[in-house]
Amino acid sequence: MIVITYLLETSGSVEALAAKIASDQSTGTFVPVPGETEELKNRAAARVLAIRPMDPVPVPSLPQDGLAGPFNRAEADIGFPFDAVGTDLSALMTIAIGGAYSIRGLSGIRVVGMKLPDEFRGVYPGPQFGVPGTRRLTGVHGRPVIGTIIKPALGLRPPEAAVIIKELIASGVDFIKDDEKLMSPAYSPLSERVAAIMPLVLDHEQKTGKKVMYAFGISHIDPDQMMRNHDLVVKAGGNAAVVNINSIGMGAMAFLRRRSRLVLHAHRNGWDILTRHPGLGMDFSVWQQFWRLLGVDQFQINGIGSKYWEPDQSFVRSFKAVTTPLFSPEDCPMPVAGSGQWGGQAPETYARTGRTVDLLYLCGGGIVSHPSGPAAGVVAVQQAWQATVQGIPLQIYAQSHPELRQAIEKFGRDGKGA
Amino acid sequence: MIVITYLLETSGSVEALAAKIASDQSTGTFVPVPGETEELKNRAAARVLAIRPMDPVPVPSLPQDGLAGPFNRAEADIGFPFDAVGTDLSALMTIAIGGAYSIRGLSGIRVVGMKLPDEFRGVYPGPQFGVPGTRRLTGVHGRPVIGTIIKPALGLRPPEAAVIIKELIASGVDFIKDDEKLMSPAYSPLSERVAAIMPLVLDHEQKTGKKVMYAFGISHIDPDQMMRNHDLVVKAGGNAAVVNINSIGMGAMAFLRRRSRLVLHAHRNGWDILTRHPGLGMDFSVWQQFWRLLGVDQFQINGIGSKYWEPDQSFVRSFKAVTTPLFSPEDCPMPVAGSGQWGGQAPETYARTGRTVDLLYLCGGGIVSHPSGPAAGVVAVQQAWQATVQGIPLQIYAQSHPELRQAIEKFGRDGKGA
Repeated sequence: MIVITYLLETSGSVEALAAKIASDQSTGTFVPVPGETEELKNRAAARVLAIRPMDPVPVPSLPQDGLAGPFNRAEADIGFPFDAVGTDLSALMTIAIGGAYSIRGLSGIRVVGMKLPDEFRGVYPGPQFGVPGTRRLTGVHGRPVIGTIIKPALGLRPPEAAVIIKELIASGVDFIKDDEKLMSPAYSPLSERVAAIMPLVLDHEQKTGKKVMYAFGISHIDPDQMMRNHDLVVKAGGNAAVVNINSIGMGAMAFLRRRSRLVLHAHRNGWDILTRHPGLGMDFSVWQQFWRLLGVDQFQINGIGSKYWEPDQSFVRSFKAVTTPLFSPEDCPMPVAGSGQWGGQAPETYARTGRTVDLLYLCGGGIVSHPSGPAAGVVAVQQAWQATVQGIPLQIYAQSHPELRQAIEKFGRDGKGA
Repeated sequence: MIVITYLLETSGSVEALAAKIASDQSTGTFVPVPGETEELKNRAAARVLAIRPMDPVPVPSLPQDGLAGPFNRAEADIGFPFDAVGTDLSALMTIAIGGAYSIRGLSGIRVVGMKLPDEFRGVYPGPQFGVPGTRRLTGVHGRPVIGTIIKPALGLRPPEAAVIIKELIASGVDFIKDDEKLMSPAYSPLSERVAAIMPLVLDHEQKTGKKVMYAFGISHIDPDQMMRNHDLVVKAGGNAAVVNINSIGMGAMAFLRRRSRLVLHAHRNGWDILTRHPGLGMDFSVWQQFWRLLGVDQFQINGIGSKYWEPDQSFVRSFKAVTTPLFSPEDCPMPVAGSGQWGGQAPETYARTGRTVDLLYLCGGGIVSHPSGPAAGVVAVQQAWQATVQGIPLQIYAQSHPELRQAIEKFGRDGKGA
């Protein structure tokens, strides 16, 4: 049985609403029809398993013309027989989630839980690389993989980008990525970008033995073109790609993963609108299950003190979600803390995510804009994590570590981001 | 230039918010970085083109802890240089829409307009069949194509479904579809369903010359499997498929359309959560542009008096959206009015959608549950449209048309749906 938990809100009865969802999303229709036998219902009918009432709210999540509150709320568990859905994730999305959003008579609906049965085990490939693959390819062990992003986000031509990237590679950073908005525009076609950047990566590897993981923006609306983009990167010796999962969609992700030889770094832009209203949409804990099964290797989930709307607590929950096995530890992607990060968030990130260093810690301006340049920026982030893991306050550690001291002076004024 | 119109809502300045979106979604970063020259800004920077203030609202679309209203609102047009995005729809979604949803300091954001420049003309395939192809394949001219849906939605085994479908085919209906929730579950694998149903369609064609268009649910999370599903239908002589566009995603739709030999009937389940809150998400007029360019042939948009949350006015706007050319009339899909329909909504549908009969009019229970059976149900819907086009009130026409009279008696009590 597949169990979905909905946060329901209605001016009417939450019990009736839950029953309606179960019916509409399985055997129901709007008038009784012949053929809906008891045997058939047993085969396919969804059932309300539990209802946990919550405090009503005075303001509805969806504006309700002419309806005064309070609006009743409850969490409802609905069980879908496995045979009514099967393991196809597009069927799961259609039956258990998509259709429920269209139902009348509710003032709010949010999918807050999804428990997949053991029939799903092994059906999907999951991450190809995840944490172990990322560590193996970067050669980074015992500390977070430290990454950065090319800025400005848009507009740099490949030769202009290469100047910046050369400096970043030399800085000792482990991972560099295209901004998620950079895919293959006229001023920076992917082929030219790969041609400009990969020789720098390989040259540095030859000289130092360290291969920086560079994730190229390969997303394209046409999966065939996306695969050609993928192949370009592979052929040039690259080992990673940024994939805008929400823009290409689940099917294209399945298509890519099945053929991929790259570490797939997921950016979830667009996702926010599905989760930002607490009474509507979906929890990340649900949504991420789809993408993990499909094979995301590295999952961007913002970070402490991010520059976006997402509160720290939501990042912490997301971190826990992606690091909790669905069926086995191998289905966990590497969490990516990013947005507004510099070393300053290391202590809080570490303390609130289970004291692990198994993450990709992504600093854009936090590295690039270090007063002494990107190399000092990378060192400062490394120092912040050294201090954190050793339990030494950053201010103390900074006394003997000038790069970290400079970073704190520049970025640390508000205690968090720049 | 690509122009996106956002409905913005904030306790602060709408002008500042619009400027922030333009910056964040193009060249901006959170600290000034080297390399952001004037030339680069001209190449890639988005710009606020116009701001149209609207009345503030007392209640924010997104709950704002501790912030009192009123919340300022405006429509803002932001122009993205074509070269910063290109024609890739996943880049467009990422740059101009997705990222904007994550921005801080807003209490509401909805994308309400999108004007694509002429560079997009001819880049995407658009509908392969649309209205003319649907008419050619069904042989229906001068009136709406009339369709129905197999009920119950889930649970029927192929032989059980075949009994119902045989009767529906004999009823004279033009189009039949699997419920969108029916894809390929264990109790009704697509291959068995095709094997059970297509001989009935072909047998009827041989006897009567009328080929009912049967749309099979071919969606699958894996585009390769979806193509195998497509091929199954083609090989058996079928000519249509139900595609759950929102569950498979844009990339998979592009993949399918490029290879498709079937009429692609789009069901948009899951879409509602992106549009149901008037201050959040996206207008259908924007979203449908993506799917039309990608190649939807028939687009479900609910109908008058639907059983879902969507108000009639929203259906009317959607109808206008899908029937308004983007670049040429060939890029218009066939609108599909469905959900709670029977003949009773024909007059209002006709009056409010520009007096056209170029639509697929989809009645589930409205046909299947007719007191004299499905054949009478189909005749009743045909009669309702005959009366409508001739400007004769249904009640009058029903005096000489018993099937319509019976339908009105059964379904017409509340004036709209059953």
